[in-house]
Amino acid sequence: MDIKKMVITQARRAKDASYEMLKATTKSKNKALEYIALALDSQRTALKKENKKDITAGKKKGLTAAFLDRLTLNDEHIDSMIKSLKDVIKLTDPVGEITSEYKRPNGMKIKKIRMPLGVIVIIFESRPNVCIEAAALTIKSGNSVILRGGSDAINSNIYMGRIIKKALLKAVLPEAAVEVMENTDRKAVAEVLKLKDFVDVIIPRGGKGLVNFVADNSRIPVIYHDAGICHTFIDKTADLKMALKVSLNAKVQRPSTCNSMETLLVHEGIAKKFLPVMAKKFQAEKVELRVDEKTLKIVPGLKKATEEDWGTEYNDLILSVKVVKDIGEAITHINHYSSHHSDAIITKDDKHSVKFTIEVDSAAVFVNASTRLNDGYEFGLGAEIGISNQKLHARGPVGLKELTSEKYIVFGTGQLRG
Amino acid sequence: MDIKKMVITQARRAKDASYEMLKATTKSKNKALEYIALALDSQRTALKKENKKDITAGKKKGLTAAFLDRLTLNDEHIDSMIKSLKDVIKLTDPVGEITSEYKRPNGMKIKKIRMPLGVIVIIFESRPNVCIEAAALTIKSGNSVILRGGSDAINSNIYMGRIIKKALLKAVLPEAAVEVMENTDRKAVAEVLKLKDFVDVIIPRGGKGLVNFVADNSRIPVIYHDAGICHTFIDKTADLKMALKVSLNAKVQRPSTCNSMETLLVHEGIAKKFLPVMAKKFQAEKVELRVDEKTLKIVPGLKKATEEDWGTEYNDLILSVKVVKDIGEAITHINHYSSHHSDAIITKDDKHSVKFTIEVDSAAVFVNASTRLNDGYEFGLGAEIGISNQKLHARGPVGLKELTSEKYIVFGTGQLRG
Repeated sequence: MDIKKMVITQARRAKDASYEMLKATTKSKNKALEYIALALDSQRTALKKENKKDITAGKKKGLTAAFLDRLTLNDEHIDSMIKSLKDVIKLTDPVGEITSEYKRPNGMKIKKIRMPLGVIVIIFESRPNVCIEAAALTIKSGNSVILRGGSDAINSNIYMGRIIKKALLKAVLPEAAVEVMENTDRKAVAEVLKLKDFVDVIIPRGGKGLVNFVADNSRIPVIYHDAGICHTFIDKTADLKMALKVSLNAKVQRPSTCNSMETLLVHEGIAKKFLPVMAKKFQAEKVELRVDEKTLKIVPGLKKATEEDWGTEYNDLILSVKVVKDIGEAITHINHYSSHHSDAIITKDDKHSVKFTIEVDSAAVFVNASTRLNDGYEFGLGAEIGISNQKLHARGPVGLKELTSEKYIVFGTGQLRG
Repeated sequence: MDIKKMVITQARRAKDASYEMLKATTKSKNKALEYIALALDSQRTALKKENKKDITAGKKKGLTAAFLDRLTLNDEHIDSMIKSLKDVIKLTDPVGEITSEYKRPNGMKIKKIRMPLGVIVIIFESRPNVCIEAAALTIKSGNSVILRGGSDAINSNIYMGRIIKKALLKAVLPEAAVEVMENTDRKAVAEVLKLKDFVDVIIPRGGKGLVNFVADNSRIPVIYHDAGICHTFIDKTADLKMALKVSLNAKVQRPSTCNSMETLLVHEGIAKKFLPVMAKKFQAEKVELRVDEKTLKIVPGLKKATEEDWGTEYNDLILSVKVVKDIGEAITHINHYSSHHSDAIITKDDKHSVKFTIEVDSAAVFVNASTRLNDGYEFGLGAEIGISNQKLHARGPVGLKELTSEKYIVFGTGQLRG
């Protein structure tokens, strides 16, 4: 069978299953998740054996140690997948929620009701645990999912796909609600991106190359974030101890993530007091500083930032620093250079808090807190499939609710259009 | 200046203006709409003169009478534009609405707040009144808009664009919040579709050719409906008088619209009773019927439907008719052939109402009412910029609220990621 036919067959199966999934009870969806957890626990040895195949192949291929590490499924990872299944079981089922309800003058009763999106394609890279976490969220939200993991984890992914399908059947749900693409050719992805009759949303989870490939080529709506250029602005009235702690956390707690800080903006009124202390502390944490002229005058000897720096997502222990004359300049800089993901202000001024949160055009805007907190668990969504910095549908963490949308249902007594 | 540069310059201006618009007060936005209404009223003669240029050019070009009719702005049209402005003034401003608010265990206060989308590009065809109606909705929802009307209405559109810009200035709002693209080359549209740094959403309003061109080529999210294949299912327990009235309204009240019915499904238990009466009535209204085998046996002599008919949006006085054995077959047929726009059931059975509204996967699902009622005014949104049958962001009429989205704002006291 050629790639195109194979992809269509799988997508059609997932679509048919989605019409069963949209009416599945919370109880049966939770049962499926429970059975997956039980199977993962009892089939540890077999799963680790499949994973070993991937690791061996990866070593032969010369994958880096870091890559092999992400590929590995040990008991700790299996425990963590089981925990995430149990966490999702506890979450409220969003399907069927009536989000508004009203009556029109002609007597029509109108309700908006939350329903699954349908078929979601999730494209991810090395980590095989995404398989379980993504399946948990899509099953619980009543969707079908097509999982397309990286070629290097294919044995692990196929094995987990089988576990999931058996669990669905045991819970009397359609096994095609979770499909694993066994063909990891990029051509197969390209074909999926055209199937607008069968696929409702595409979610790419991975590096820029993957995200851009999907966004550039998809005829189907895509949920993604395409960059994480996040800022922290230290206002004139900031508590400087807090400013130091929060900005340091935003940079160094896990610099490779999308919600870590890339640029620090400092009000000129406190720059002389704050910057020398800040520079010392960040340098002690091995952060390379790239600074503007004004900063350089206060802390000589630092590397000068170029225009390119202000628009760069380092994902590394590098930080650009700029002195601004007021909150207005800070907001203008952020709206120009930010990727509209997560930006923060440290201030004691309530008017500035309000101004900053309204005017900074980002998915999550923080006052006196670390940008690293833009996260499904931290925001109380329970789990997330990713963070979106787009404007449509969902901004910020994408959890169960964001995997649904609202449709209108209308109850009439023979109403006509006049 | 080349097309690309021109388009970028205009989009950048609109983007800058959007940061002013997002903080504009309801009062000043309403003022702008009021000034537009006043100017339309006082400048009728001049506007009609510009419109006359378009009509004259259109006649020379050999445009059809129907096309010229859509192009025309007479006093009645101007009155109607003024009324739509006044209607939008009365609508609640969605910007700034707090849609949820809660506190996390670490003390963070989280709010979700409704904010404008940013820059919206609306691409429309012949009717110049879209200019005013689209500007009214985008101004009121705090967005910037780039209006790209058809070349045949260019003089009318440019004149109205000037009226709008003057009104914005008078209301102390940025005039670049409404931009009219004076270049009506399709190349200019193609350029706009690439500007993901300046444009947040594209809304094509027009025929399939336009919508497909935009959806196929846009790197920016698109809000649209791509077809209106709508169904009415007459259940076994239906009030047959109501069934006849509602289905007739759904077909003939305005057959060219996206929410008019294209296929009638009839339960086999009432087919013998209903179909002969229905056929007579619809034929009296000049509707051509294309029917399945079972219908043909009950009402001989009708044209037989082909497989293609079930998937066709006629937008005309044509209806396909099929007898189904039960509600299950009706739902399966609809989910397979429907464009997921508007579908209806006529029934007295409450269980069937619930089953149908949950399982039919469409933007609006009706019980005992005409599919023609899927409309912003009918649903109480006040006005709409179009109807979406996509799953993400907004299903159904796109009104003021749907021109906004929710962002997170987080108030902390120094919270860090652990």
